[in-house]
Amino acid sequence: MRSAKEIINEAGQWIEPSLEDVFPGDIREDITVKASLYSLLAGGKRIRPCLMYLFSRLLGLDLDEVIPFAKSLEMIHTYSLIHDDLPAMDNDDLRRGKPTCHKAFGEGIALLAGDNLLNRAYEILFAECLKGDQGKIRASQFIADKAGINGMIGGQSIDLDSEDKAIDIDLLYELQDKKTGALLCAACMVPCYLGGAPASVASEVMEYSMHLGLLFQIKDDILDVEADPALLGKSTGKDERDGKATFVTLLGLEEATSRMNEEYKGCLDNLEHLADEGFDTSDLRILTEFLAQREY
Amino acid sequence: MRSAKEIINEAGQWIEPSLEDVFPGDIREDITVKASLYSLLAGGKRIRPCLMYLFSRLLGLDLDEVIPFAKSLEMIHTYSLIHDDLPAMDNDDLRRGKPTCHKAFGEGIALLAGDNLLNRAYEILFAECLKGDQGKIRASQFIADKAGINGMIGGQSIDLDSEDKAIDIDLLYELQDKKTGALLCAACMVPCYLGGAPASVASEVMEYSMHLGLLFQIKDDILDVEADPALLGKSTGKDERDGKATFVTLLGLEEATSRMNEEYKGCLDNLEHLADEGFDTSDLRILTEFLAQREY
Repeated sequence: MRSAKEIINEAGQWIEPSLEDVFPGDIREDITVKASLYSLLAGGKRIRPCLMYLFSRLLGLDLDEVIPFAKSLEMIHTYSLIHDDLPAMDNDDLRRGKPTCHKAFGEGIALLAGDNLLNRAYEILFAECLKGDQGKIRASQFIADKAGINGMIGGQSIDLDSEDKAIDIDLLYELQDKKTGALLCAACMVPCYLGGAPASVASEVMEYSMHLGLLFQIKDDILDVEADPALLGKSTGKDERDGKATFVTLLGLEEATSRMNEEYKGCLDNLEHLADEGFDTSDLRILTEFLAQREY
Repeated sequence: MRSAKEIINEAGQWIEPSLEDVFPGDIREDITVKASLYSLLAGGKRIRPCLMYLFSRLLGLDLDEVIPFAKSLEMIHTYSLIHDDLPAMDNDDLRRGKPTCHKAFGEGIALLAGDNLLNRAYEILFAECLKGDQGKIRASQFIADKAGINGMIGGQSIDLDSEDKAIDIDLLYELQDKKTGALLCAACMVPCYLGGAPASVASEVMEYSMHLGLLFQIKDDILDVEADPALLGKSTGKDERDGKATFVTLLGLEEATSRMNEEYKGCLDNLEHLADEGFDTSDLRILTEFLAQREY
């Protein structure tokens, strides 16, 4: 059996070179581009590209055709981190063990670097749309929808609006389905759009991604309490200091862990249904287990 | 002869109702959407939609088909104003006679409102791309390119990077071609893409738009010195106080006015060439004259 590390490395080797090339030519001298690449190439686990890679392989897609979508999604994810880290939002100094973008380049350039990554992601997707394949256009539209007010931005909005307010567990689920879940959902679903997967498959993938988003976020909240900051690459215990509502602060560590295990089980059920339809889900099972057990 | 006011009002009546509808349904209760609409519906002259309207009429396009492109462009323009006004960038308290978005909603929500308008603009454009017309996809791609690092964001980046540095007039031209010119160029060129205009027409429209961008910006710099703040809806004399390089601070008022008149003449030449090809350019001449002579 392969290890999660092997799988993540394989997907990393697939996506990383193309991320280095999203701003070709002289434009690399621009300070905003430097700041954009500083954050985009800061490492990270590349979970979204990895999920897109694994579902593309599962569906038998041409992996080269998927690259523009994986890199656009990772750029959108990175822009959201840069803006989230700004003093006006989460005010974080450290990300992936390095100074955050605004700490390295100043707030104005960091703001612009986020805008730049978001805009560039869509430039890349429009170039794909021109190729005349409806699946590519639908995949692009799905990414934009999940990045927007019905997805990630909507989650960030609830998050910001609920600071210093008591929010209940239902609103926290909605917030996290959007803030974290939406882009993970896009990562899993884009291959379905590109490959024209039948509804029976797409619905399993969609459900899997929603369970995974919650698994991922609840684990994040648990790590904020339990992780080794050196391993995590950012400070811990911040949620409680900031009075932030998380699955752990609202439910306690034990109940949060139990809910995370529920989502993990949900993921495995969906993968089993896909396996029943004849798809090879072995790598996805390994990755899912890793995400549930990760220490950073 | 029609007045510029009539023309601007007519274009305003065409675009305004559709701007009110860019976030339909329950999502209007979201605080980020409220902030987005606060800025989007704050008035302004709607010059970009007006230009798109006039060139669409000139080319005989179905005006209903153009609306999604005009509103997306105006949303992109508005997001750039919201982010530009933030303390990390220009730090402006007043815009169009009203408190800027971050003054009304706080910096975090204003940041998110800008992201939201940018993302939503592209959601709208992808929906257009799905209609299967290559012209619509090319128009969308052109907007994204002009909004990005090769256009507006590139200009903002030079602007921010050159604060407190001595910049020369050549760099100022490049900065303003990108920062102000790029979206005006998109406004004029989108109808060419949508209508499949021949190269001879598209090149005149492109040149017109570049002259207009400079005319518009030099006039802006002149107004910062000469205008009545009450009429302008924002404070004046700010450029000099901020030590900002503008056409007026670098060249003096007389030379700046002379350069503006050169660009105005350039605009009229391009319109004359279009008239020679049989197009009705009368409203565009009136609008161009208005932009050269405006007092706000």
